[in-house]
Amino acid sequence: MVEPARDTQAATKVVPLLKDELDIVIPTIRNLDFLEMWRPFFQPYHLIIVQDGDPSKTITVPDGFDYELYNRNDINRILGPKASCISFKDSACRCFGYMVSKKKYIFTIDDDCFVAKDPSGKPINALEQHIKNILSPSTPFFFNTLYDPYREGADFVRGYPFSLREGVPTAVSHGLWLNIPDYDAPTQLVKPLERNTRYVDAILTIPKGTLFPMCGMNLAFDRELIGPAMYFGLMGDGQPIGRYDDMWAGWCTKVICDHLGLGVKTGLPYIYHSKASNPFVNLRKEYKGIFWQEEIIPFFQAATLPKDCTTVQNCYIELSKQVKEKLSKVDPYFDKLADAMVTWIEAWDELNPLLELLPKLPMAKHNCNFLLVQIFI
Amino acid sequence: MVEPARDTQAATKVVPLLKDELDIVIPTIRNLDFLEMWRPFFQPYHLIIVQDGDPSKTITVPDGFDYELYNRNDINRILGPKASCISFKDSACRCFGYMVSKKKYIFTIDDDCFVAKDPSGKPINALEQHIKNILSPSTPFFFNTLYDPYREGADFVRGYPFSLREGVPTAVSHGLWLNIPDYDAPTQLVKPLERNTRYVDAILTIPKGTLFPMCGMNLAFDRELIGPAMYFGLMGDGQPIGRYDDMWAGWCTKVICDHLGLGVKTGLPYIYHSKASNPFVNLRKEYKGIFWQEEIIPFFQAATLPKDCTTVQNCYIELSKQVKEKLSKVDPYFDKLADAMVTWIEAWDELNPLLELLPKLPMAKHNCNFLLVQIFI
Repeated sequence: MVEPARDTQAATKVVPLLKDELDIVIPTIRNLDFLEMWRPFFQPYHLIIVQDGDPSKTITVPDGFDYELYNRNDINRILGPKASCISFKDSACRCFGYMVSKKKYIFTIDDDCFVAKDPSGKPINALEQHIKNILSPSTPFFFNTLYDPYREGADFVRGYPFSLREGVPTAVSHGLWLNIPDYDAPTQLVKPLERNTRYVDAILTIPKGTLFPMCGMNLAFDRELIGPAMYFGLMGDGQPIGRYDDMWAGWCTKVICDHLGLGVKTGLPYIYHSKASNPFVNLRKEYKGIFWQEEIIPFFQAATLPKDCTTVQNCYIELSKQVKEKLSKVDPYFDKLADAMVTWIEAWDELNPLLELLPKLPMAKHNCNFLLVQIFI
Repeated sequence: MVEPARDTQAATKVVPLLKDELDIVIPTIRNLDFLEMWRPFFQPYHLIIVQDGDPSKTITVPDGFDYELYNRNDINRILGPKASCISFKDSACRCFGYMVSKKKYIFTIDDDCFVAKDPSGKPINALEQHIKNILSPSTPFFFNTLYDPYREGADFVRGYPFSLREGVPTAVSHGLWLNIPDYDAPTQLVKPLERNTRYVDAILTIPKGTLFPMCGMNLAFDRELIGPAMYFGLMGDGQPIGRYDDMWAGWCTKVICDHLGLGVKTGLPYIYHSKASNPFVNLRKEYKGIFWQEEIIPFFQAATLPKDCTTVQNCYIELSKQVKEKLSKVDPYFDKLADAMVTWIEAWDELNPLLELLPKLPMAKHNCNFLLVQIFI
């Protein structure tokens, strides 16, 4: 049986890569005690906590972490009517954190994810591995059989075209999970006891033209390269579907990365996923998605973007039109979602150009959005 | 430093899967002492040894193995003028073994490949793992982030379309190498000391539409599903190129597998590759290929086959036409190669329908081709 790492404090000497260029985004409804275990790895970084559910509830964050926290009232205040694009009572709300970040890179993690151990028993610094993944190129145009050719001890194998060995910039690093695997409700019901104990020591680029199920539990990306595509959709409260937030973002992101010549990596790092969510609750959230994905995935597999879409925003708006045109007949929900995709981009563009104009002020430890509020009202 | 397994004899209780349905094809120019280490795994199977180079040389095979051996004289006698499609003084000659086999499955291995050990120190039965790979389906239409979903302890993750979970038949299992990695000459020259010590505990399907560098060192395939595409081209003696035999087969095979809805897996099993070939010699063999692959790979990436090509033979003949039309301008060699592709299919079809009509006779231990010769002359 796999176990999480227990003594992460003592175990590691941490060099905080990209300390001032990366935000850690955490959606939560509870006190963030799980951060204690991550302290040696996360403490040097700034956290953006997106509080889901009842905004009157106080979320406790362990001492010593540098963070800003947004609850639903903050989101409504900052985005005004555009807040409608941010999901409520669903971890999809995390994408608000991507929008308000001022950093180049985002790492997002669920609050039931703990530090995993590698096969030698060493605690895995997931964030460090994500950063390594993101900072080394991807190889989407041809498969390298020894996996990531940029890792130490690896390279391109015989027969790999030399013209492709520079690779392309990596936009996304998708990490995996030991212990509780990320299964859908039917699989959870059928295999309630299955645990992932297989540590696969690999990172690989998902080839161009291939879609994958992107899980938002342990994910990093380059906000400047792909941020506006990382919209987690309309889920949870008032919506007919849940647990497809990260899938939606993954499909859109992959199509746009393929179009723009950006890379998506998957594999290491592992986190230790501690708690299986309730399969009955999950089934209720998922069941429409289980039908819909049979039509959504072929839609995204066939989607092409015009050549003049050269920014993520342009690509995303174009995708929203195609969603409206081709998926609305699956369910009226997609009409609403296509509109929300547009709202998301409008909100992103409003927040982000303004932020670039702001003087680089030291941020308050939490609820620092007074500045934004003043600008928006 | 990785080391090969030493005591394979004692270590294992072997259940010989597909014993009567699989041939092991070995191209060689030397005595097959390397088989001693493989004895517990290979002895139950029939070997087809393709002797390259001087046919007057006697190749010694350790006692107790069931084999047939073909030298150049045998190949010429069996194929007549069509023997021109089989390379000489190059391990590409191995594909003759695929052609004369009467079995459903082929495993081919180089004679400098030994038994590797898994991280627990246990000798790896490479053949058994290949058989497991081939007998379980592939998933080329959507990427599964937990790798092969059919392995024990794994499954399809959340977001994987249920309609695709049956998978498709697996045509090819491509195994990897510990110790000496399969690098091209320039990489060998630059990194003479690099050794592959990373055991990646994964098998994965190479997605539809993605090409890969297929290495022939440790490879299994379903002859009935894809055999006629496994032509290793014109290499070695009298040819302007070497070391692209398996690459050529890999490109053709992958395009045809994608067209026919068949799967290609890569990853486990590892073998221990003992000896780096001479990088200077390799550079001489490869250097045209290093240029040519920059045009060949885009050619194969763009290649499409008409819908009415429903057999491997049809697909392969169609590919040969496209090679002639589009690659001959790269070098006249491709004109010759396109012709050889046709000859190969003609020879394959001649040998194989006939073999189906033959009574199931016990095969002689070696040089058993007298029967074939009688039929062909």
